[in-house]
Amino acid sequence: MIFRTDLITEAAEVDSSLTGIKSEKIKKYGIKGTQVEVLNKEAEERIGKRQGKYISFETDALLSRDTEEYIKISKAIADEIKKLVPAEKDKTVLVVGLGNESMTPDSIGPMVVKNIFVTRHILEYLPNEADERMNSVCAIAPGVLGVTGLESADVIKGIISKTQVCAIIVIDALAARRSERMFSTFQLTDTGIEPGAGVGNKRIALTKETIGVPVIAMGVPTVIYASSLVYDAAVDLLSDITGQSEQKVEDAARKMASFSMEDMVVTPKEIDIIAKDSAKIIADGINLALHNNISLNEIQSYMF
Amino acid sequence: MIFRTDLITEAAEVDSSLTGIKSEKIKKYGIKGTQVEVLNKEAEERIGKRQGKYISFETDALLSRDTEEYIKISKAIADEIKKLVPAEKDKTVLVVGLGNESMTPDSIGPMVVKNIFVTRHILEYLPNEADERMNSVCAIAPGVLGVTGLESADVIKGIISKTQVCAIIVIDALAARRSERMFSTFQLTDTGIEPGAGVGNKRIALTKETIGVPVIAMGVPTVIYASSLVYDAAVDLLSDITGQSEQKVEDAARKMASFSMEDMVVTPKEIDIIAKDSAKIIADGINLALHNNISLNEIQSYMF
Amino acid sequence: MIFRTDLITEAAEVDSSLTGIKSEKIKKYGIKGTQVEVLNKEAEERIGKRQGKYISFETDALLSRDTEEYIKISKAIADEIKKLVPAEKDKTVLVVGLGNESMTPDSIGPMVVKNIFVTRHILEYLPNEADERMNSVCAIAPGVLGVTGLESADVIKGIISKTQVCAIIVIDALAARRSERMFSTFQLTDTGIEPGAGVGNKRIALTKETIGVPVIAMGVPTVIYASSLVYDAAVDLLSDITGQSEQKVEDAARKMASFSMEDMVVTPKEIDIIAKDSAKIIADGINLALHNNISLNEIQSYMF
Amino acid sequence: MIFRTDLITEAAEVDSSLTGIKSEKIKKYGIKGTQVEVLNKEAEERIGKRQGKYISFETDALLSRDTEEYIKISKAIADEIKKLVPAEKDKTVLVVGLGNESMTPDSIGPMVVKNIFVTRHILEYLPNEADERMNSVCAIAPGVLGVTGLESADVIKGIISKTQVCAIIVIDALAARRSERMFSTFQLTDTGIEPGAGVGNKRIALTKETIGVPVIAMGVPTVIYASSLVYDAAVDLLSDITGQSEQKVEDAARKMASFSMEDMVVTPKEIDIIAKDSAKIIADGINLALHNNISLNEIQSYMF
Repeated sequence: MIFRTDLITEAAEVDSSLTGIKSEKIKKYGIKGTQVEVLNKEAEERIGKRQGKYISFETDALLSRDTEEYIKISKAIADEIKKLVPAEKDKTVLVVGLGNESMTPDSIGPMVVKNIFVTRHILEYLPNEADERMNSVCAIAPGVLGVTGLESADVIKGIISKTQVCAIIVIDALAARRSERMFSTFQLTDTGIEPGAGVGNKRIALTKETIGVPVIAMGVPTVIYASSLVYDAAVDLLSDITGQSEQKVEDAARKMASFSMEDMVVTPKEIDIIAKDSAKIIADGINLALHNNISLNEIQSYMF
Repeated sequence: MIFRTDLITEAAEVDSSLTGIKSEKIKKYGIKGTQVEVLNKEAEERIGKRQGKYISFETDALLSRDTEEYIKISKAIADEIKKLVPAEKDKTVLVVGLGNESMTPDSIGPMVVKNIFVTRHILEYLPNEADERMNSVCAIAPGVLGVTGLESADVIKGIISKTQVCAIIVIDALAARRSERMFSTFQLTDTGIEPGAGVGNKRIALTKETIGVPVIAMGVPTVIYASSLVYDAAVDLLSDITGQSEQKVEDAARKMASFSMEDMVVTPKEIDIIAKDSAKIIADGINLALHNNISLNEIQSYMF
Repeated sequence: MIFRTDLITEAAEVDSSLTGIKSEKIKKYGIKGTQVEVLNKEAEERIGKRQGKYISFETDALLSRDTEEYIKISKAIADEIKKLVPAEKDKTVLVVGLGNESMTPDSIGPMVVKNIFVTRHILEYLPNEADERMNSVCAIAPGVLGVTGLESADVIKGIISKTQVCAIIVIDALAARRSERMFSTFQLTDTGIEPGAGVGNKRIALTKETIGVPVIAMGVPTVIYASSLVYDAAVDLLSDITGQSEQKVEDAARKMASFSMEDMVVTPKEIDIIAKDSAKIIADGINLALHNNISLNEIQSYMF
Repeated sequence: MIFRTDLITEAAEVDSSLTGIKSEKIKKYGIKGTQVEVLNKEAEERIGKRQGKYISFETDALLSRDTEEYIKISKAIADEIKKLVPAEKDKTVLVVGLGNESMTPDSIGPMVVKNIFVTRHILEYLPNEADERMNSVCAIAPGVLGVTGLESADVIKGIISKTQVCAIIVIDALAARRSERMFSTFQLTDTGIEPGAGVGNKRIALTKETIGVPVIAMGVPTVIYASSLVYDAAVDLLSDITGQSEQKVEDAARKMASFSMEDMVVTPKEIDIIAKDSAKIIADGINLALHNNISLNEIQSYMF
């Protein structure tokens, strides 16, 4: 496809029938969202997203830097993680930050890992220093194939073979199709990660089937591919103006999009700051979810 | 205008008459380039670029990271700077890095400043430690209005009022119109900087008239505005397909472009690395130009 | 002197007489501190610190990363700044961050500047967007002589000549003598900055006399010079053990200290994080002080 | 011990007998060095360094930033790596960067990894794009226990269980005892890594015995512990001056050293730049060693 999106809401919106797809509006701590379920194989193939549950929260707090909203998004995320991830003391939750930390649009995953409150080593090696409200959490940013020469999936499977892991939370930067979605949708799913998803088209497949434990995938769109932007603009323009047949419009738009450079991405100029904020929101959500009533302030002084 | 470019080659190419514009191909150290002269007021207004001389070097070395080419670009730049800037021991050349260092696409200027070999303080306060091949160079990154609350022009005028400056070299990140120009054109001009130029639409005006000494402006395109990309795609598409009148096509394209977010920019995903490389090339060019046969290796050990 | 300190509390403690020095304990928002006044020229020369008022707050919150304490320190700092700095709408307060941002122990000043809420440009150029609670604030990090070739004092005097400045707040990294002071004392003084102070022995002199407006200097110790550490250890050891005369002990200690490398500094291993936290605390203090009841949350969304 | 060093040359120098230790001067590309062999268990226990071979190169190029020397050090390192590491196409060499990248003195390992030319993924997944001079190399920075909650050794063993590894090269920041060694000694050993070594006292043990493949350890001293500095200064001073018995001197010095803060380290102020240079030198050495005549320039454009 000339355009691509990692967002279920965008993938589903092109599908007018919506057979096999259940979608409902939700609202948590004042943050609006959508819960989508892809119910069967047929819907899965039609919209190109795996069968399972997808929750997304929508906000314009990041682009306006409304920092008081941040904590509400983190809390909404935390509630959903709690439903999906069985945190405990004896087995550990592994948080995986996918992506290349040296490339801002692809760095959300590694940035989240830096803000995760890890406790596995305390519970394991220093049990006397452990707070009884802690569950076991560990975290790694395995890097990307082009930088390490290693498949992220192999690194993670290696870790799991040496450690008692009960669930995995994978964070990745996403690509959206519409500019208004960028840094505005936090998506969470129990379907894991498929090859080709995320910024940079990672080859990784991490799902309950391949790994053996629940895999929650989470992310926020940090880019739109320039080709998507041009394609969408062209389709809108042509249908609006020329009155040509749908197929001709599509063909013309597709040709147009391929003129723009393959690897060009569209981002807000302030991406450095917004990406950092997003990573903090996601990490806070995970930190709130995985332990029992440890406040973010307590966590920050523990983390030093 | 819905689209904008800081490149003379792009501004001139829309102008079929080229009256009052002199353009010739050049080649230095194997690097191809163009020298454009805007000869009169009328041409200046037509293409929206100040009267004066513009040299640009074109290369695809940055996008392919062909580091052996880098030194050739630096040498080509150095030769042109030497023609325009009268370096000496008793008066100083001030290198100004415009832009916001916390925003990668706008950070070329401040990054160049970090790589400039400054010598003014040695010649002034430690003359015994000075190498006789040194001329006097100083450098500052004044920040952007939104971060400092100060006009860059005021900071620079303030410095000039306290220091004997014989010429200014201003570095700024540029916006291009065509994706193939991004990080591929190094532009140098003796016309200074106009308000509205550069990434982030700086308000600064720095010219020989306002400052009293020669002002050389230099930069490389780090972004295309998303609206330009969409506009150009739309024009191409419409003229190609619909056969409508030129005015109608323009109107439609203009409408289209305004749909895309105002502040969205198109960049290569690897901008963090490419921007760093570009800044090094420019700084090396300046360092080679302003002193008398001090090699880049010598400069690096001096700079510590 | 073989050892040096920028802290008045350390400078005063070596002086057993304390003639001409008034010192009293203070406490604000639960943070303990000391207010020292150097009352006359004679005391000034004896302890090597300019006549005037010095306020310091002491805390171990940074080394234990007790983030809930941070806001209390900021509020305590804010109260003291309010007493010394006459913020207003028509003239601006200039915040100056001294130091080299590429050298962590010397980077507090530039890091504070990045967190200052600047408003001068809004009040000046966009008065309709101004909040009536804002006073005029601007900020600059002029860099260090070795990097810019320019005296910071000249850059600042230049800015003042182009702008209506009513007061200056200068931030600089300090050197302490005792390891327990590192990142534990926030010092504020109305005496300005003297040459030789700060990490890196800056040559700058910024005082009310040289500049013409009140100059408040503020900082936190980020290093101890290795020679100070060795000197103090040696003096303690020798007086404790050998029973030699005071002069001999001093001579021996002095000899010892000069063996260690001139430019070596002692820091906590975690200096990167602690320095960032300190800069945030100081910036928050300034931001709270200079406007009228604008909360830190409001400021953060304004600052984007 | 109150003081510690990771350098064999410092560990051996306290041992006047040198029984079971073979030491000889070497010189490569103009860089002077020492080759030490710990020949038996008894010598191993006496000096606290594992039986095996240690090569160190000494240079003051980093502290004077003599960049022309850098390539010579890299070449000298490359020659020694070649003798110890059997690079090939079918099995991969794993480069491991130990340490915490957010803490400059402990960040050498992760910084080296960023500069390693990895090829395993090309040889494995894109054999047509492979250069025949390439051998298989991969690289990872597993993070530190306090940040990931995972033992580095477990992460590495996990990777080895999923990948055909023929040798491991582990990079770590080292602690020295004498200030003149800091950033001046590049050490290479075939003995692997022991628990407690490196900056931050890592718990990791990585040796041929525990891993099953050759483990080469390599590093450069980035810190001296403040306690070592004070201890050494005190011993020198006391023996010089007081004429007391050796035991008394030691006791006094030991007491002195414990006064200084446990976690304080001594570094050059310019550590940020010097650490980056060191990492580049080590990475270049590894890159030159592991492939067959691929130049550093070629590698740089491959690495993009």
